[in-house]
Amino acid sequence: MTNIAFIGLGHMGNPMATRLLKAGFPVKVFDISDTAVQALVAKGAVAAKNRIEIAKDTDVVITMLQTGQQVREICIGENGLFKHLKKDALYIDSSSIDIVTTSELHNIAKQAGIHMLDAPVSGGVAAAEAGTLTLMVGGEESTFNKAKFILEKLGKKIVYAGIAGTGQAAKICNNLLLGISMIGVCEAFSLAEKLGLEAKKFFEISSNASGQCWSMTSYSPVPGLVEKVPSNNNYQPGFMAKMMLKDLRLAQHAAENAAANIPLGAEAAELYSLFVNKGFGELDFSAIIKMIAGS
Amino acid sequence: MTNIAFIGLGHMGNPMATRLLKAGFPVKVFDISDTAVQALVAKGAVAAKNRIEIAKDTDVVITMLQTGQQVREICIGENGLFKHLKKDALYIDSSSIDIVTTSELHNIAKQAGIHMLDAPVSGGVAAAEAGTLTLMVGGEESTFNKAKFILEKLGKKIVYAGIAGTGQAAKICNNLLLGISMIGVCEAFSLAEKLGLEAKKFFEISSNASGQCWSMTSYSPVPGLVEKVPSNNNYQPGFMAKMMLKDLRLAQHAAENAAANIPLGAEAAELYSLFVNKGFGELDFSAIIKMIAGS
Amino acid sequence: MTNIAFIGLGHMGNPMATRLLKAGFPVKVFDISDTAVQALVAKGAVAAKNRIEIAKDTDVVITMLQTGQQVREICIGENGLFKHLKKDALYIDSSSIDIVTTSELHNIAKQAGIHMLDAPVSGGVAAAEAGTLTLMVGGEESTFNKAKFILEKLGKKIVYAGIAGTGQAAKICNNLLLGISMIGVCEAFSLAEKLGLEAKKFFEISSNASGQCWSMTSYSPVPGLVEKVPSNNNYQPGFMAKMMLKDLRLAQHAAENAAANIPLGAEAAELYSLFVNKGFGELDFSAIIKMIAGS
Amino acid sequence: MTNIAFIGLGHMGNPMATRLLKAGFPVKVFDISDTAVQALVAKGAVAAKNRIEIAKDTDVVITMLQTGQQVREICIGENGLFKHLKKDALYIDSSSIDIVTTSELHNIAKQAGIHMLDAPVSGGVAAAEAGTLTLMVGGEESTFNKAKFILEKLGKKIVYAGIAGTGQAAKICNNLLLGISMIGVCEAFSLAEKLGLEAKKFFEISSNASGQCWSMTSYSPVPGLVEKVPSNNNYQPGFMAKMMLKDLRLAQHAAENAAANIPLGAEAAELYSLFVNKGFGELDFSAIIKMIAGS
Repeated sequence: MTNIAFIGLGHMGNPMATRLLKAGFPVKVFDISDTAVQALVAKGAVAAKNRIEIAKDTDVVITMLQTGQQVREICIGENGLFKHLKKDALYIDSSSIDIVTTSELHNIAKQAGIHMLDAPVSGGVAAAEAGTLTLMVGGEESTFNKAKFILEKLGKKIVYAGIAGTGQAAKICNNLLLGISMIGVCEAFSLAEKLGLEAKKFFEISSNASGQCWSMTSYSPVPGLVEKVPSNNNYQPGFMAKMMLKDLRLAQHAAENAAANIPLGAEAAELYSLFVNKGFGELDFSAIIKMIAGS
Repeated sequence: MTNIAFIGLGHMGNPMATRLLKAGFPVKVFDISDTAVQALVAKGAVAAKNRIEIAKDTDVVITMLQTGQQVREICIGENGLFKHLKKDALYIDSSSIDIVTTSELHNIAKQAGIHMLDAPVSGGVAAAEAGTLTLMVGGEESTFNKAKFILEKLGKKIVYAGIAGTGQAAKICNNLLLGISMIGVCEAFSLAEKLGLEAKKFFEISSNASGQCWSMTSYSPVPGLVEKVPSNNNYQPGFMAKMMLKDLRLAQHAAENAAANIPLGAEAAELYSLFVNKGFGELDFSAIIKMIAGS
Repeated sequence: MTNIAFIGLGHMGNPMATRLLKAGFPVKVFDISDTAVQALVAKGAVAAKNRIEIAKDTDVVITMLQTGQQVREICIGENGLFKHLKKDALYIDSSSIDIVTTSELHNIAKQAGIHMLDAPVSGGVAAAEAGTLTLMVGGEESTFNKAKFILEKLGKKIVYAGIAGTGQAAKICNNLLLGISMIGVCEAFSLAEKLGLEAKKFFEISSNASGQCWSMTSYSPVPGLVEKVPSNNNYQPGFMAKMMLKDLRLAQHAAENAAANIPLGAEAAELYSLFVNKGFGELDFSAIIKMIAGS
Repeated sequence: MTNIAFIGLGHMGNPMATRLLKAGFPVKVFDISDTAVQALVAKGAVAAKNRIEIAKDTDVVITMLQTGQQVREICIGENGLFKHLKKDALYIDSSSIDIVTTSELHNIAKQAGIHMLDAPVSGGVAAAEAGTLTLMVGGEESTFNKAKFILEKLGKKIVYAGIAGTGQAAKICNNLLLGISMIGVCEAFSLAEKLGLEAKKFFEISSNASGQCWSMTSYSPVPGLVEKVPSNNNYQPGFMAKMMLKDLRLAQHAAENAAANIPLGAEAAELYSLFVNKGFGELDFSAIIKMIAGS
């Protein structure tokens, strides 16, 4: 039997760990919030008190944390997980973090004889509960193949992205493009309306033309055009504006370190910064149409 | 029989006028280039020497010109077309021009008892020849209905966009979004590559995720991912970078006059300006990936 | 004696025409507002009812209007001023308008045998009253020399900028730089404050270092650092944000027509657009620090 | 006698350590380059082989390194300098690094009973040699007062900026503003020239008007207007474009962490990124006028 340890039991970590329990795996759990831990214990998980307990007899560790700094603290250093895990253990980081930290973790894991995958997810809480997340996975292909039977319990679409770090890269680049096109869609709708062109009409025209994009046709920031989107529900998230800002910052850091140019990405980050710093960070990221429209 | 006059016989005007001739309409033609006129006369058109001849016994006038200034000069003023056309004549402007000029033309046409439609097209020369253009049409709905049998000879998709000016608005807003998302796609591909994520892999992931957009899935700026796109052919256009710049400038002018905000649109315009002013204006607009990639 | 006609009697035109009267010139005045005209008549001016009266026996015409379109309407066309002025008359346009219109006016004036200067001003109402405006003047140098004795009644600093249009160019380029550096100063102060560095301290350091600029040292957007600036007075103008937006738009139009790149200028325009469209256009342009600071 | 240790003997560190030797202090030196160390030994310094030797009997340590990561590695951790220095020792970091690292260093130093100052410099190699640097200093005011007699050997202008981190903040905010205004000046000159307004004329007008800034009047990117600037010498630095990019990135990181908005700063960073990634990073930062001018 494969012994799994799951670290980070927040909005996403909770349902992901739950799915592993339901799939029959023995799961040890760890979180700084005792409440979060007890919620999983009630479903059959075992609480681990520290990194030594997390590592003991564990085959696979999965982390689902907020920042690269948090992941680094759990894994690296004298008391880090990588010192305590058995050789050939598998480590999967599903957090969305920066490329520099991911690369550093891969290197240190390798030196410690641990097989690491970076496997950030997309899809949100509902998909985590339903097991329909998309996972973008970077690392050795052989490791990917060994881990697949676990990843498939967490998501529906499991994509091998390539070498170490490319899972994070795929998520960062996709969300960079998403942030840009969402603002682009907001600008187009706002301008259209002020020129007397109805949103419904513009949607009909542009969604069948070269302006078509997911932000318009699957996640319209204008209410009433597409079903089941945050704009229909007063911009309750969904994907919060502050999380989009976080991802655009990850893209900027990645671009800085890779000597890449992302001029529109940097501008999109600044627009989300203006929006979030004004106090709207917990609205859905499509709510930025309000700022663009000037209302 | 409906007598048509066609003004502006360039790359687009030539095949459009030709289609009307083939459809059996008597077509008078006018252009400042005598060669352009003779090419149509050879196909059965009649050359008109001036605005009085253009207007005489004409039911429908169509213009396909480069700038708002050119359209204004043909139509307005003491010797303008609107002074000479018979009452209730139909005037269709298929040029892509600024909103201010379009609105002015609609107003003056109305005062002269002429029914005007703004009907810019999308699809390029090949679509003009094949009669598969998309036409976005603004003006009175009754005028639209009367004109439809002619428009249908020119394009496959004839969309009524709404009140006067909304045909131009639809095209401008769509191309604003197109310009932004193309650069967004270029930034995402460039960053992905520098992070070790292969273009093919990123395409596979993002085209099925929230980054999906027409610029990626139907017009990829990276060669070898999509068939029959300019990137496969050394960025021979297609849609020239300088034409994209022109459209982004139209969006800026429209936004300025309508008090709309288009921050990413303005930045996209500046990036195309850097690219075009550097001497690359005649390449396809997807070639901007070279500048973004820093090569 | 030199007979002067003055057209456009608004906030700036009124004190400028008044100074000419005080200097002893016979001044004919014209404005669409009768109240504005009567205010000058009370000071000794003669009201002109139309362009024929304006032109009759006039040696010098000065315009001080809002837009290029207004200047064009007064000067050009069948009933335009240029048709009625005597040969060798002098025409001075002190309006701040676009380069295209200025060039067009210079050309038509020349054909009509009229000597034109573009001579936009800087300095505001107080300087107009005190005769301490700066005038940037474009046109033939010989014309400039002939006009100088009049210009010196209006301003203290009369700078010959060069060929036709360069007066406007000087004002546009200066204000482009002013708009950019004002926002730069706002960003630097805002960031400094959030990093725990007091505004007073940052001012002391940067005003003596490479960040020094007029926007900081003579017009600080942070209250309490410099005397007699709008920030000390709740951002009552001074120079309104909407006027800065107008000037940044003129710079964009000029750049578009001249194939010049102004990426920061375009971004500055968009930031002022967000600010003005949100309803703050009548505050001083330094008030944009509120938007940057996120308050 | 005050025993000083100096770490980091590059272009700036070398002349700074030399000045301390000349002032009569005993100076221990350390660098990863043995050549760099020997150059100072030849002037009377003593070579230290490791952090234990650096710390032994030392009253004051000064670091002049490239990145926050380098400073962190020297100071923090089991073998870090802070573990080995005697209590109440003084630590001065003159490197230009990020705010987060500076704050972290201040905290750890304090816990170790070490008095730290962040004291980045401006002025370049020539000023380092002449002892005319400007030092912006953050930390306890009492520490600043104790350190002043040493700092005065290094620079002419020693400014106390405030609490811990404000030395770095002052440098970052000043250079943020410098980067923005330099590009603003380049845009204004480029546009002016394309509008027929000579650079010399525009300089004369704007340097006496509201566009005035240090980037124009003391460091003109157009050759021939100001003496002794890099533009007169084919843009040999001076201050390299890649160093400006580094500082603009520091500003972005600071803004991200402080929830501040710097839209023009982000755009300026992207423009320098385009310029540096194209291969021009070792030219003076004023050379970006070439990219703006499109040549």
